[in-house]
Amino acid sequence: MMASLNTLAVLAASLTAVSGQYYQRLGTCPTLGCVLPPDQQDFLPGQYFDLRLEVHAPVNGSEAFNNGVPDEKFTVTIAKEGGAAAEDVATFFKLDEPKLEKWTFKWYEDLYAEDAKQASVVNVASKIYRRLALYEPGKYTVTLNYYDGQKTTAEWVVRPLATEKKAKNIILFIGDGMTTNMITAARLLGHKTINGKYQSNLQLDHFPVIGHQMTHSIDTFITDSANSASALYSGHKSTVNAMGVYADSSPDIYDDPKVETIVELLKRIWGSAWGAVSTAFIADATPTALTAHTRSRGAYGPLIDQALNSVTNYTWTNHGGPDVYFGGGAEQFIAGSGSYQGKDYYQEFAKANYTVSWNKTALAAIPNEEKALGIFCRSNLPVWIDRNILPDNTKNLTNDPSGAKAAATDLPGLKDMTLKAIDVLHRRGGDKGFFLMSEAASIDKQMHALDYDRALGDLLELDDTVRATVAHLEAIGELESTLILVTADHGHGFDVFGGVDTQYLRDQKTDRERRKAVGVYQNSGLSNYQVEAPGVSYSTGPNFPVNWDPRYAIAAGFGANPDRRENYRLSPTPRTPATNTPGFSSADYFANGADAPDGFVVNGTLPTNEAQGVHSLTDVTIYAMGPCQETFGGTYSNIDVFYKMANCLGLARPDAGEGKACAKEKKQD
Amino acid sequence: MMASLNTLAVLAASLTAVSGQYYQRLGTCPTLGCVLPPDQQDFLPGQYFDLRLEVHAPVNGSEAFNNGVPDEKFTVTIAKEGGAAAEDVATFFKLDEPKLEKWTFKWYEDLYAEDAKQASVVNVASKIYRRLALYEPGKYTVTLNYYDGQKTTAEWVVRPLATEKKAKNIILFIGDGMTTNMITAARLLGHKTINGKYQSNLQLDHFPVIGHQMTHSIDTFITDSANSASALYSGHKSTVNAMGVYADSSPDIYDDPKVETIVELLKRIWGSAWGAVSTAFIADATPTALTAHTRSRGAYGPLIDQALNSVTNYTWTNHGGPDVYFGGGAEQFIAGSGSYQGKDYYQEFAKANYTVSWNKTALAAIPNEEKALGIFCRSNLPVWIDRNILPDNTKNLTNDPSGAKAAATDLPGLKDMTLKAIDVLHRRGGDKGFFLMSEAASIDKQMHALDYDRALGDLLELDDTVRATVAHLEAIGELESTLILVTADHGHGFDVFGGVDTQYLRDQKTDRERRKAVGVYQNSGLSNYQVEAPGVSYSTGPNFPVNWDPRYAIAAGFGANPDRRENYRLSPTPRTPATNTPGFSSADYFANGADAPDGFVVNGTLPTNEAQGVHSLTDVTIYAMGPCQETFGGTYSNIDVFYKMANCLGLARPDAGEGKACAKEKKQD
Repeated sequence: MMASLNTLAVLAASLTAVSGQYYQRLGTCPTLGCVLPPDQQDFLPGQYFDLRLEVHAPVNGSEAFNNGVPDEKFTVTIAKEGGAAAEDVATFFKLDEPKLEKWTFKWYEDLYAEDAKQASVVNVASKIYRRLALYEPGKYTVTLNYYDGQKTTAEWVVRPLATEKKAKNIILFIGDGMTTNMITAARLLGHKTINGKYQSNLQLDHFPVIGHQMTHSIDTFITDSANSASALYSGHKSTVNAMGVYADSSPDIYDDPKVETIVELLKRIWGSAWGAVSTAFIADATPTALTAHTRSRGAYGPLIDQALNSVTNYTWTNHGGPDVYFGGGAEQFIAGSGSYQGKDYYQEFAKANYTVSWNKTALAAIPNEEKALGIFCRSNLPVWIDRNILPDNTKNLTNDPSGAKAAATDLPGLKDMTLKAIDVLHRRGGDKGFFLMSEAASIDKQMHALDYDRALGDLLELDDTVRATVAHLEAIGELESTLILVTADHGHGFDVFGGVDTQYLRDQKTDRERRKAVGVYQNSGLSNYQVEAPGVSYSTGPNFPVNWDPRYAIAAGFGANPDRRENYRLSPTPRTPATNTPGFSSADYFANGADAPDGFVVNGTLPTNEAQGVHSLTDVTIYAMGPCQETFGGTYSNIDVFYKMANCLGLARPDAGEGKACAKEKKQD
Repeated sequence: MMASLNTLAVLAASLTAVSGQYYQRLGTCPTLGCVLPPDQQDFLPGQYFDLRLEVHAPVNGSEAFNNGVPDEKFTVTIAKEGGAAAEDVATFFKLDEPKLEKWTFKWYEDLYAEDAKQASVVNVASKIYRRLALYEPGKYTVTLNYYDGQKTTAEWVVRPLATEKKAKNIILFIGDGMTTNMITAARLLGHKTINGKYQSNLQLDHFPVIGHQMTHSIDTFITDSANSASALYSGHKSTVNAMGVYADSSPDIYDDPKVETIVELLKRIWGSAWGAVSTAFIADATPTALTAHTRSRGAYGPLIDQALNSVTNYTWTNHGGPDVYFGGGAEQFIAGSGSYQGKDYYQEFAKANYTVSWNKTALAAIPNEEKALGIFCRSNLPVWIDRNILPDNTKNLTNDPSGAKAAATDLPGLKDMTLKAIDVLHRRGGDKGFFLMSEAASIDKQMHALDYDRALGDLLELDDTVRATVAHLEAIGELESTLILVTADHGHGFDVFGGVDTQYLRDQKTDRERRKAVGVYQNSGLSNYQVEAPGVSYSTGPNFPVNWDPRYAIAAGFGANPDRRENYRLSPTPRTPATNTPGFSSADYFANGADAPDGFVVNGTLPTNEAQGVHSLTDVTIYAMGPCQETFGGTYSNIDVFYKMANCLGLARPDAGEGKACAKEKKQD
């Protein structure tokens, strides 16, 4: 889900701005001298990155300094602990000194300043050193000297990691926004208990190793899916909306200092196959963060070009394009306003020798030896519940991937896409193995809409896909050689707190009386989602509910929400919890009277310009099975997931020579 | 926290009644023939249990049967898979046939029936076989034959578990109500990040193995702390409010079929020392479930007698009394209405050779070789925040443990109690080792009050206690021989969703305007709880906030709540979110105008007779370190925590002879 911006935050967000809280001048730079990557960052030996220096001169506001004139004569050195004395960065990395850049940006110091329209103006002098790498593990100190005696230092650690491969393949499943609370609720709906004992379980329940990973951003404690995906894929945390870069303060959203991602490394070093599958539009953050280098996740068209052609505005690793790329989001492929430079990206992919599929039948027929693009609709794929339980909801859409004004039909689900992706990657990767990211995107998207039934449906679809993946890997002889990971990028505050007699609720006259329908503790009852109801038959097989709308339903709630209505029943159509109201600002949301009309009103705690639920702080679980599984126990940062994967794939390079030679040898396309 | 009962549920709860949902006739008995323990239960080889049979004859309602006359001629058999043919239970266990019991109970079939006051009446015929044990691992089938051809079967599994001890000691920490979401929030408050990297961590973050355990009850998906503690301690799930028994439908709350608990087993088999520490009143569910056998957790006085003297109304294992018992709850010790039979339980414990302590100084002076009772106040211990940050809140209480009308002073915290408990148990257990349960009770209690600052303070106190425990075990040479577990009994729906400018919030004029103070995603900011504020100094050391009330605070919310007010600031006194309102029923709660008076109103989703927040569904984490730690990875039921501990302690007994001989040999007192 695109992180919905407060309108009050749009200016600050576009400038990536502060020190302190709420708004920040530049989150990674509390002083006036900025080093990006900043203090406390970790690196894989041999991983490419850019180094940006900025010197800030606030013109006004509480930080006003030097009459708004930034020091243009700043210098920067680097030293390795236990090594030689600090050297100029250009000397150390044997580079020419880059040219000086200058710009100005604005931000608000706090909400009072914003209300008063008192923007703070900052002038900046900057340089950027591009495509560096540190090969020797150890601690490094980068020192920026500016304003005649000011210093900003950054301590970096290049981790000692393995150069040998332990896993041939990695499949990384991401349940976007998926928390332990949701997994518990999905189990309750999809599986049956007798006297407290589950008679079947989630596939996730069979994973031998569990870890928890912390999802926070580099500069805020709540993340979005862009920078959290980027942390998982690159080992570097970033700022909300940023992917594959440390966000700088420059006006150009494509010039921020980059870091190399797992698929770039894997292609450069081992020449492996790689791919991405998502139930979102494929230009969404979680799939594109594999290849994206921008601080603005909303640049959808350019992101698809980066996915196909790699970074083209600077010398950078060529990831060769995905071997499989399956999802929604035809908007970025149909020639027009949504596509990069208005070009037809179906054609661009076809020119690069991709087969292009628009439906499930075509997907199944893709030859495994060819690169494959599969775009099955505009926008996100309709969710599992609408595809399987309420198919009428998919029939009146105008989402045909060809661009025709028609509904996309013959839609694949996550399982169809993932199993096909494995076949293509297995064939194309051969001995070199593969990396696949498969995302259940609408767990997050439907939780944003507070439509937890649809979110849990897609969570059960993810679990079903993982189950089928284990079976399929076993069948093709790759189970032992594949590390399977299932995790999330962040959470939503959600939990089940009781059961509810939805019929009784509907029969009451006032909102307060309706609340009496909820039973807690000993009155929560047992799941009725596994109790067959007369006349209800979905034929969706084991591991899914046999009744999605029982009289006795779960009562679930959110840690934060816009004004909304609730009746605890499966919404007949996808939910829109809050809407504009005539006579009020278009950015002022109230409970949607058409949503759960027989329910009651729950007033919100979010700013009234938020129309949806938001992400939360909680650590998320990572499940591991396969080679290196034992390294995924315990609690750690989301960036550690990258380092654990990189270690298992032997992606560390001990010296430039090998790394570069390797990159040339293995370069494809 | 005592699970707050809906007034509408009191009748049903007291009768433990239904089939279906919301209200249940008897949760473990959807048919008219009940076997307790019911179908799908697991057992430790040699674990004592009672077997209750009931035949129900509903007089009226949708289940009316046989004119309300229960079959008194029912029979019951048991057979082992692969063994001899089914035998009568009395024959199989070599027992006399117990006498027939008869009673009547009432329940409501649903909320409509309750509104109409149409109770369903059920007549019951029953027998109970007491103190049985199954020694041979395998599957057993118990069959109840009744009403001339009706059958209810129960499949039981006696698990094949170890008889040898792998861990000398187990320390089981329970953060009552503690979820991953809360642990993440506590880390944010107690520890500092620089550019996304924590500079220190929770002690929990250093545990090598993580598991998830499912907390649901035997007959409802939301649990309370009584039956979830009982599941952890006995390997048998039960019903809300029940401990150490399967809840039956009889009027007597002390005659329900019992199961043997870990401390009863440990004393009987190995003669180890054991103890309990809690920040709750010590008669609360989590500590007393170690020794309690009743379906009614509210029987506080009798529960303290069971803790000292074991079960006295039936022949049962004598657990010898705790070697240490530290907490609050003087009400059950001071002679009077709160104590069992009005007796002075300080004296009862003293007569049993316990030293008795009433404050931190006396606690520290307890001789390690003697049994120790420490009761430090009436009710629950004041929480960490009130003891350490806002001590005035402890001074106007009337909670002196002696019964004097004065405030308890010189209060110990969880760390003081736990470290002393370890010293006594280590000395008294000697080579036989020990089992300690240490509970951070007010994580739950303060989450019930929606007072998340106080809850997180006690969570940080728990973490600090675990840290000190690891260091202390190392110092006394017991770290390698001790399995340390940290887990919870259930959750509360809670998460942090953003940051908030509390000053801006206070300055706004309307509730909708106040919501604008919340920043989400890129405006959530960084934790200001680790930023020193002028004039603020708590001296609470590392791993706790240096400012508990920063201008930029966390914005957190609940999955369900009564009507309440919110300003996102540390409440100067413990919170009472909802209160009665003149002119309305005393069981009709509205937001408390005195709570967060400068905040805004959040209307509730809970029944309006709930004054507090409630438990939630989520699986909870278990952290493991020490012998057998590797067996705690993955996802499993709360009862599996018992079986894993029992396996590590070698509590399985392969035959009656050894078990009984052992019990006699080791019997103490």
